[in-house]
Amino acid sequence: MEKTKIRSWADVTPRLVNVAAGRDAADSVIRRGQWVNVHTREIIADIDIAIAEGRIAYVGPDADHCFGPDTEIIEAEGRFMIPGLCDGHMHIESGMLTPAEFARAVIPHGTTTMFTDPHEIANVLGLDGVRMMHDEALLQPVNIYTQMPSCAPSAPGLETTGFEIGPEDVATAMHWPGIIGLGEMMNFPGVVNGSQQMLAEIAATLNAGKTVGGHYASPDLGPAFHAYVAGGPADDHEGICEADAIARVRQGMRSMMRLGSAWYDIEAQITAITEKGLDPRNFILCTDDSHSGTLVNDGHMNRVVRHAIACGCDPVIALQMATINTASHFGLEREIGSIAPGRLADIILTSDLTTLPVEHVIARGVTVAMDGNIAVHCPHYNWPDHVRETVHLGRDRTAEDFAVRTRDDASTVTANVIGVIENQAPTQALTVVLKVKNGLVQADSEADVAQIALVERHRGTGGTTNGFVSGFGYTGRMAIASTVAHDSHQMIVVGTCRRNMAMASNRLGTVGGGVTIFKDGQEIALVELPIAGLMSDRPAYIVAQKVDAMVAAMAVCGCALNNAFMQHSLLALVVIPELRISDLGLVDVTKFKFTKLIEGTQ
Amino acid sequence: MEKTKIRSWADVTPRLVNVAAGRDAADSVIRRGQWVNVHTREIIADIDIAIAEGRIAYVGPDADHCFGPDTEIIEAEGRFMIPGLCDGHMHIESGMLTPAEFARAVIPHGTTTMFTDPHEIANVLGLDGVRMMHDEALLQPVNIYTQMPSCAPSAPGLETTGFEIGPEDVATAMHWPGIIGLGEMMNFPGVVNGSQQMLAEIAATLNAGKTVGGHYASPDLGPAFHAYVAGGPADDHEGICEADAIARVRQGMRSMMRLGSAWYDIEAQITAITEKGLDPRNFILCTDDSHSGTLVNDGHMNRVVRHAIACGCDPVIALQMATINTASHFGLEREIGSIAPGRLADIILTSDLTTLPVEHVIARGVTVAMDGNIAVHCPHYNWPDHVRETVHLGRDRTAEDFAVRTRDDASTVTANVIGVIENQAPTQALTVVLKVKNGLVQADSEADVAQIALVERHRGTGGTTNGFVSGFGYTGRMAIASTVAHDSHQMIVVGTCRRNMAMASNRLGTVGGGVTIFKDGQEIALVELPIAGLMSDRPAYIVAQKVDAMVAAMAVCGCALNNAFMQHSLLALVVIPELRISDLGLVDVTKFKFTKLIEGTQ
Repeated sequence: MEKTKIRSWADVTPRLVNVAAGRDAADSVIRRGQWVNVHTREIIADIDIAIAEGRIAYVGPDADHCFGPDTEIIEAEGRFMIPGLCDGHMHIESGMLTPAEFARAVIPHGTTTMFTDPHEIANVLGLDGVRMMHDEALLQPVNIYTQMPSCAPSAPGLETTGFEIGPEDVATAMHWPGIIGLGEMMNFPGVVNGSQQMLAEIAATLNAGKTVGGHYASPDLGPAFHAYVAGGPADDHEGICEADAIARVRQGMRSMMRLGSAWYDIEAQITAITEKGLDPRNFILCTDDSHSGTLVNDGHMNRVVRHAIACGCDPVIALQMATINTASHFGLEREIGSIAPGRLADIILTSDLTTLPVEHVIARGVTVAMDGNIAVHCPHYNWPDHVRETVHLGRDRTAEDFAVRTRDDASTVTANVIGVIENQAPTQALTVVLKVKNGLVQADSEADVAQIALVERHRGTGGTTNGFVSGFGYTGRMAIASTVAHDSHQMIVVGTCRRNMAMASNRLGTVGGGVTIFKDGQEIALVELPIAGLMSDRPAYIVAQKVDAMVAAMAVCGCALNNAFMQHSLLALVVIPELRISDLGLVDVTKFKFTKLIEGTQ
Repeated sequence: MEKTKIRSWADVTPRLVNVAAGRDAADSVIRRGQWVNVHTREIIADIDIAIAEGRIAYVGPDADHCFGPDTEIIEAEGRFMIPGLCDGHMHIESGMLTPAEFARAVIPHGTTTMFTDPHEIANVLGLDGVRMMHDEALLQPVNIYTQMPSCAPSAPGLETTGFEIGPEDVATAMHWPGIIGLGEMMNFPGVVNGSQQMLAEIAATLNAGKTVGGHYASPDLGPAFHAYVAGGPADDHEGICEADAIARVRQGMRSMMRLGSAWYDIEAQITAITEKGLDPRNFILCTDDSHSGTLVNDGHMNRVVRHAIACGCDPVIALQMATINTASHFGLEREIGSIAPGRLADIILTSDLTTLPVEHVIARGVTVAMDGNIAVHCPHYNWPDHVRETVHLGRDRTAEDFAVRTRDDASTVTANVIGVIENQAPTQALTVVLKVKNGLVQADSEADVAQIALVERHRGTGGTTNGFVSGFGYTGRMAIASTVAHDSHQMIVVGTCRRNMAMASNRLGTVGGGVTIFKDGQEIALVELPIAGLMSDRPAYIVAQKVDAMVAAMAVCGCALNNAFMQHSLLALVVIPELRISDLGLVDVTKFKFTKLIEGTQ
């Protein structure tokens, strides 16, 4: 596997020592900047940084003794020199981009390190898929560490994924060069209840000396929470209020505070620092999920840091939470996260510490972006063909596959219907009376009830699971189908018309995955996501344009929800209450049990 | 090798989770204390701690759900519960005690973790000696991590040690279970000048993922300092002023601030926190060297924390500097240094956070001391016989061995004389005119010039190197001999009488090392240090009594210096300016070169 070459500090000490002592010339020197020191929480003026071998050799006043005839000079001209930004927890797949294209999108925003959990591809392609993400990550000119996914499937027994991840997979992956720890342990009921498999995955990680990511998505801070902490997860990004953040940090976890495209969890938690005055060292900023549109229009970790500052956080503390705190958490504080000797030369020049314009980005000693423009190549992995052929429908679907049947003589049924709630991940479990015609249960546009189906796409079983969903506002004859379908990433199809649902399903089978919208028998939007049905290897701005067009098409079909596509893609996420659909049936997520679609027939 | 059994967090997660969840009973519960939280820097009242498998299972309000019929209850009764104290850098040999006896002395003071560099024994017994210290350390009921000594000899070419340590030894030791990193890299000129051997030792440590200890004993904060930092040391305890502390932390090192028996470096440096307001996370407290008398009379890390508080430091910040900061530095923050789930249950109960009375010490879940009394066994290693037979004189010495001869017809000589400076480690290079009788250069009690000799004791060469020393104030006919002779630990003999010098030397050959004082042909004090000529395996209070008697005997001989014995034992330390003696000759430590004893004859 080709890798971006960067030698370890141990390997280059002779050169760094020689440069610092003035016996050898630096590769480059950044001159006369304000050193934002995340170790001391100071800003120190008139500082030079000498760089060699991609690492920092010298930081101090006047690096003249490090100059040689070939030393490149970068004039900071009094600007702030801050460490490259680190995203403490995120999923690349959320951008619908490959690691290379994700990196290309975020480098101009100053992100030079990402801790990524390729959890989505793990559900589609298993350990092999994780390895390919990991390998493409290692090709990049910035640091992309991989967290080994812990929970595929997310809800064993309630859904079928393309592949499963077990403790042996975790133990294997811990030896890969880019693995930094275990990805978020979402199966918190499993940990709390002492699940042997979950504790074995954690043990494999701890025994490798690596960090266990957490995900405790519950407001219960009683014994269940304490049991989860005792199980070993070292961080959590699911806190949503100040009490959550404080509880986690008190218990020796790190509180990861999240600003994703649709997550706004910082404002409510950062008061633990800004008002309660807690030691900020155990707080970390992250994005978790960023859509390509956010990356193109708003930024990445620079957006998060700016937001933290806007919430009243001291700028240097906010920067600590996106640099050294993150590095320390993963045992990398002597590799990244600060501007100090031996560390990778990941440095941003900015003229304002509050608005944080990212004017010049240096990664591993090389200029990788200037004034928002990428200045470096982000190599693509040579994805094998089978990765682009993951939509296995078994057979084409017809309208009949989406027929929900009951007794021929029935006039109505009482159905359990998934109720979408705007701007919230949880759904409501609704009970709705639906009309029956010739034994076929009918959707009801007037009552805002559409059909939903889970089309099996991993193993070619030809299976289709049907249900009803309310809240999208769809009208007319339409269907939307998506192979982005957290977490199993089967295919979710929502529609008002069974024929359009079949057409949308088959279309994704043909293009290899993505999102498509059909209206009156015509495709009106398509986002191709050929890699695992989750990601595009085209640039972020192109994907963002297509996603924008897709969202516009949803609106054309009557849907006015905020974050409408995210709501769609989460309808199979059988770990968040109350009601979801999987390939195995309708799931009551308050009880982690299957439930009936039709409660009664009249 | 027998080891104190403590299972890893990974191995006991099922039990800890069950206890926290209330499905299993804790081994013990500490009830109703004030939780000193070093993660958040808070004090939280009315907290219970449940312990199982020697680790913390639950910390929170009301652990009633963790009780069972066999659960031991410890009533905190509102006292403060603080993490067991950690000493970030120290040498056990400085107490003249074995690891077991050192542990027994410090556990009642609340020290539950030590990072120890068995640098002294390395000079006498090499890697084998380090291994024996390491093995005895692992037998103890508290945590003693070993830093692999980096510099034996401390000054290659200027002295002969019993054994030498090289990069291969370092690489070997990195695989031992109790090795936490490399001991203080004292050869800072070597690092600054790119010494291949020193950088190889550092690389071996970094490649093992472990921490490189630093020792930069120079006021020069220019390029030499920066080159040292670029070489990889991660901490330094040689800072003596605020600027030293700030410079180190800015450069991404940790500043270890020292209060030893004779080191008082905290008051001058802690202002970086108390006045300059720097982020305290990268400051650590340590002792470096504690004499047995200090351990018996004053304390250990509790003394250091109290002192930091007395210097104006917030008590919880002072505690962070002796607990979580230390743990984080060595990559152990999920093992020790805080009261949080999964961590070793190392806990102190104290009723006052300022005066810090150590009332109850729990280590690994077991009560190890109460009200200053040890409550646990500290097992001795089965030291092999050859470790007690390290004083190899080759042959008995006679007065003639200490004769300094010049021309028979000379009346005086001009000699280079080592000048002792009270309360300082550096010596002065003096030039003194001494009388000659029958070709024998004479000491001069009136001018306070005594003889000094380095008696070879490692390899039995029979060699003796002679010189003169001023400043001890010795009068009458006396001699003091010591096999504690930093860092080579040959034998230093100082005296006013050649016959007494021979008797003292031979006496240490007979008893196997230690310190002896002869006056008028009679031994008036003896401290037996049979293990490597450095340590006793008797309890600290006995050793302290003998040392007190020895210091009193020095006074009887006319010496009124503060820390008189330390001054004596450092006279062969050929890395600290200006003038020292080694087995190879008189050393000018300003130039790292040998110099003549006799400059001129008159």
